[in-house]
Amino acid sequence: MQLPKQVMIKEVGPRDGLQNEKTHISTADKVQLVNLLGQTGLNYIEVTSFVHPKWIPQLADAVEVLQAIKRHKDITYAALVPNMRGLERALQAEVDEVSIFMSASESHNQSNINKPIEDTFPILKEVVVGAKAAKKHVRGYISTVIGCPYEGYIHPDKVLRVTEKLLEMGVTEISLGDTIGVGVPTQVEFLLEELLKRYPAEKFAMHFHDTRGTALANIIKSLEMGMTKFDSALGGLGGCPYAKGASGNVATEDVLYLFDEMGIETGIDRQKVLEAALFIEEKLGKAVASKQMAIVRNERSANQR
Amino acid sequence: MQLPKQVMIKEVGPRDGLQNEKTHISTADKVQLVNLLGQTGLNYIEVTSFVHPKWIPQLADAVEVLQAIKRHKDITYAALVPNMRGLERALQAEVDEVSIFMSASESHNQSNINKPIEDTFPILKEVVVGAKAAKKHVRGYISTVIGCPYEGYIHPDKVLRVTEKLLEMGVTEISLGDTIGVGVPTQVEFLLEELLKRYPAEKFAMHFHDTRGTALANIIKSLEMGMTKFDSALGGLGGCPYAKGASGNVATEDVLYLFDEMGIETGIDRQKVLEAALFIEEKLGKAVASKQMAIVRNERSANQR
Repeated sequence: MQLPKQVMIKEVGPRDGLQNEKTHISTADKVQLVNLLGQTGLNYIEVTSFVHPKWIPQLADAVEVLQAIKRHKDITYAALVPNMRGLERALQAEVDEVSIFMSASESHNQSNINKPIEDTFPILKEVVVGAKAAKKHVRGYISTVIGCPYEGYIHPDKVLRVTEKLLEMGVTEISLGDTIGVGVPTQVEFLLEELLKRYPAEKFAMHFHDTRGTALANIIKSLEMGMTKFDSALGGLGGCPYAKGASGNVATEDVLYLFDEMGIETGIDRQKVLEAALFIEEKLGKAVASKQMAIVRNERSANQR
Repeated sequence: MQLPKQVMIKEVGPRDGLQNEKTHISTADKVQLVNLLGQTGLNYIEVTSFVHPKWIPQLADAVEVLQAIKRHKDITYAALVPNMRGLERALQAEVDEVSIFMSASESHNQSNINKPIEDTFPILKEVVVGAKAAKKHVRGYISTVIGCPYEGYIHPDKVLRVTEKLLEMGVTEISLGDTIGVGVPTQVEFLLEELLKRYPAEKFAMHFHDTRGTALANIIKSLEMGMTKFDSALGGLGGCPYAKGASGNVATEDVLYLFDEMGIETGIDRQKVLEAALFIEEKLGKAVASKQMAIVRNERSANQR
């Protein structure tokens, strides 16, 4: 197996995780969560979203959270930005990096952004231009890169089309999202073969959801294809509100177990991520979905017997 | 990716799954479970265990279950047999195939079988000779082939040592068990490289537990190494009572999702396996651990809203 010595994990739990949780998390708890994550060795944390609170009420305190967290100089604190109004607020809150988003599938884009793909590009371009004028890098999320809840399998051609446009705009990195967690390694391989014919691996991060248990298998295949950047969310939080049956992001601590055991460096302390996951689990008042956390709970209840 | 066109799934849920479940399942329900599994297209079902009921009270009705199930001529109905007394009962119940078991790690063997590895061989040999005299194939389980709850990482040399002995005795197939679900693909690759230097792939089946979410990744790596036989348990039932924190076998329906989406034939109807999983979930009175079943539950609750 040809594997990289080192990979980078981008923590998206505070945003992609919490945005779909119904239990209200206070601003102070969000700040503490980000601060706990800041002590784990992570270099990238997506903190919040500037999508209108009407759509994501959980993250209505985006400005307050970004302003209250304790910043570390080695960490990039990013936020999701849908449009110019969002960008304004994000810059006001001194975000380090901006993430824009759209879908590879027409119907998911319509459902999620309320616009056809073609009409989404100009809105995002404005954000990219504005962010770059403010000297911020922009990351581009592409959702439904393998499967769409409405259209089924998505051919790499559709991902290529959106990739091309986003890179032309000046996006520095693309996060390829298997938003509803339907992908299997053969599909990941096919998608990456097509993308890597045109672009270097460094342009992409992989964003898997573990809805069908295939996330770690897809990460292994991605590693073998030369990918070294992976999104994950502590506790396996999150999902997609528009995708029925979709459960959470692949859990950071599960990804860390895999990398740690394979001798691939991440620079992240798994134990400290588990402490952050325990913190948010308590605040959410429900068992989070990661395998590592299930083991922690089992061990605790065994010790109490 | 070099993949086989076709694989064989061996269902171990009624034995390896139920043996660790505390909720009592009636003989009639076990029979119905096996009969439901018999309609899915599976060719191999491990029905029960002839380990002394003192150790596994859940399966004390092994003879009754084997005698009451509806047999299909294309299906091998197997059972676990620890010794000559167990073999006698298994043959009386007209089992099709016998499974013996031991561990690659000394301390797990001691804990599970209450004997050192060397003292286990003669007992198993007697069973193999007896089973073959009755014209039954014998399958050999090796537990803890990657990690042991007491000793940590297990080197392939220890697996080779037990493999050699079991094959010498006349075992027709060896099931390699990552009993506590600690394995990652690099370890699976190293183990199989060592084994395949000496033996053909057909001699082995892979038996993964999904305790740390790595089972499907390990199955993919095994497929790439030429393996075509996989054990799994509907609903992800089971675990290991001697291994703290160990959760269940990889779920048959999750493995089927992976194979179905990758275009690898199994001959098994995933929907029918889900029906059997729903049946046993109801009898156990708790949510089973498979990803596919979580999706079924999500969809049902969404439809009820």
